[in-house]
Amino acid sequence: MGGALDPALARVRGAVRAALADLPPGGAVLVACSGGADSLALAAAAAFEAPRAGLRAGAVVVDHQLQPGSGEVAAAAAYALAGLGLAPVAVQQVAVGEHGGPEAAARTARYAALSACADAVGAPAVLLGHTRDDQAETVLLGLARGSGARSLAGMRPVDGRWRRPLLDVDRAECRRACLAAGLVPWDDPHNGSAAYARVRVRAQALPALEDALGPGVAGALARTARLLQQDADALDAWAARALDEASDGDGLDVAALAALPAAVRTRVLRRAALAAGCPAGELALSHVDAVDALVTRWRGQGPLDLPGGVRARRRCGRVSLDRALPG
Amino acid sequence: MGGALDPALARVRGAVRAALADLPPGGAVLVACSGGADSLALAAAAAFEAPRAGLRAGAVVVDHQLQPGSGEVAAAAAYALAGLGLAPVAVQQVAVGEHGGPEAAARTARYAALSACADAVGAPAVLLGHTRDDQAETVLLGLARGSGARSLAGMRPVDGRWRRPLLDVDRAECRRACLAAGLVPWDDPHNGSAAYARVRVRAQALPALEDALGPGVAGALARTARLLQQDADALDAWAARALDEASDGDGLDVAALAALPAAVRTRVLRRAALAAGCPAGELALSHVDAVDALVTRWRGQGPLDLPGGVRARRRCGRVSLDRALPG
Repeated sequence: MGGALDPALARVRGAVRAALADLPPGGAVLVACSGGADSLALAAAAAFEAPRAGLRAGAVVVDHQLQPGSGEVAAAAAYALAGLGLAPVAVQQVAVGEHGGPEAAARTARYAALSACADAVGAPAVLLGHTRDDQAETVLLGLARGSGARSLAGMRPVDGRWRRPLLDVDRAECRRACLAAGLVPWDDPHNGSAAYARVRVRAQALPALEDALGPGVAGALARTARLLQQDADALDAWAARALDEASDGDGLDVAALAALPAAVRTRVLRRAALAAGCPAGELALSHVDAVDALVTRWRGQGPLDLPGGVRARRRCGRVSLDRALPG
Repeated sequence: MGGALDPALARVRGAVRAALADLPPGGAVLVACSGGADSLALAAAAAFEAPRAGLRAGAVVVDHQLQPGSGEVAAAAAYALAGLGLAPVAVQQVAVGEHGGPEAAARTARYAALSACADAVGAPAVLLGHTRDDQAETVLLGLARGSGARSLAGMRPVDGRWRRPLLDVDRAECRRACLAAGLVPWDDPHNGSAAYARVRVRAQALPALEDALGPGVAGALARTARLLQQDADALDAWAARALDEASDGDGLDVAALAALPAAVRTRVLRRAALAAGCPAGELALSHVDAVDALVTRWRGQGPLDLPGGVRARRRCGRVSLDRALPG
């Protein structure tokens, strides 16, 4: 205390203050903390800012039980969090499955545990420590999917109960903020494991991009994510309206669909396919494109079979998407 | 002749055939050729396909005069092109300026020379040899700008008179097609010069991304470009309509603007600023954001000065953008 506030700590606190501004006083927020520099800086800032916003701040440490000694790491983090004045501080053990690969399975387990804790303490908001660097990595990982704006749009600053105050703060600032606050962050050995695509992006791809394109690539990627989120939101809203307008009881009016720009028409058809029962994870661009051909490249094609037993066909100026009845 | 057609050559020819399909027979097309593998494969395919589509195909070699011996390289390329049966074959010398850096200046000079040649022979279409790899590099170069969908949307397959039949064909296929056609491509020494951002992206950044994300990154980037082109087109169309609807003689109606999604509103404001006289190259995201604050974060701000002497202000429920009169 005393003296000028460290600029990195000031920046993290300012970001957290802004993220708490719309929460009604008297409530609780929860900080998700791994003990790493990003979420530890977040927790320290939340411990400082939440009381000033009339909020109680607790914390959760998720123990993924994937490494020997993970329980000790979680306990040490919980001890540090309690020392910051956060309460309650919970350690939540989870069993990570295998569905979708190791990173996706760990993420699924983590978010489920955080949700359960937030429900238990009645916290409407959970703060997550994703930084600008994480956002840049997410955008590059989305590039590899090549499935358009939504996959490049990265993580949202506010997404239901999840809040990510640090998306404009970089990892180095979080580390400096910890140092300034006298906190010793834990270094996750997974962060050095080249078995993870995210780690390879961080250690190799982003530095190579910075070499080629100049400094500021992470910032440009984060800015791109924000703009593409807005684009995707606007186009989704248009598509929802257009789907409604093109629908009658018997399907989608071909003339109405054909009058839409391609970006909207393909989103309408994707929505219609999902509504008919196609599983989102199995519905590929190529499926949507084949349905689009019924509208824009009609030459008398037969019915199309889509994932989840959904069948698309064109008849009498309408495209219909229906789940075939079993048996 | 005889034997099975080489698959790479077949692919390049198929791509050129599709790109020529909508041109009225009896006309002419022009192939822009540097003598490098991509444009040489393009030229060979055009020489084969154009007569079959009832079209005459000529070629232009632009001599940028940037390297000693560039005249000989251009002459050798012209000789090879004439040997393919293309006519007329022109060598066009250009003087490259310095505006915007060496790559941009060479591009400006090249497109101007190609336009002049196309006008001279009355060709409605000029074929350019950009490949999927070029498209991927363009997307990554656009990422560094961080200015959203338009900067990530890469090059268009058809853009006015310019046609890029090879955006779905990769560079290695072009090289194989040349080999199969018995053509010896010229290797531009600039392609090895790390002074160019594009060369650094090609030699370092893309391989690092492939290492991190797996093969197929170039294809994913090209697919991303196509989807973001469609998104940008749809949003631009919406913005044009919304600008029209929000305008009356005195400015833009704030309530109409505020009802738009952010992606559309910022495009409307950008259009209005350009229409008022802001130079496109100087109008940054931050300027548009400041104008947007007059709509969405109004707290009695004063007038804003934008590039090109344009002034934005809010008065009586309207935002106006006007060029200040000199004097």
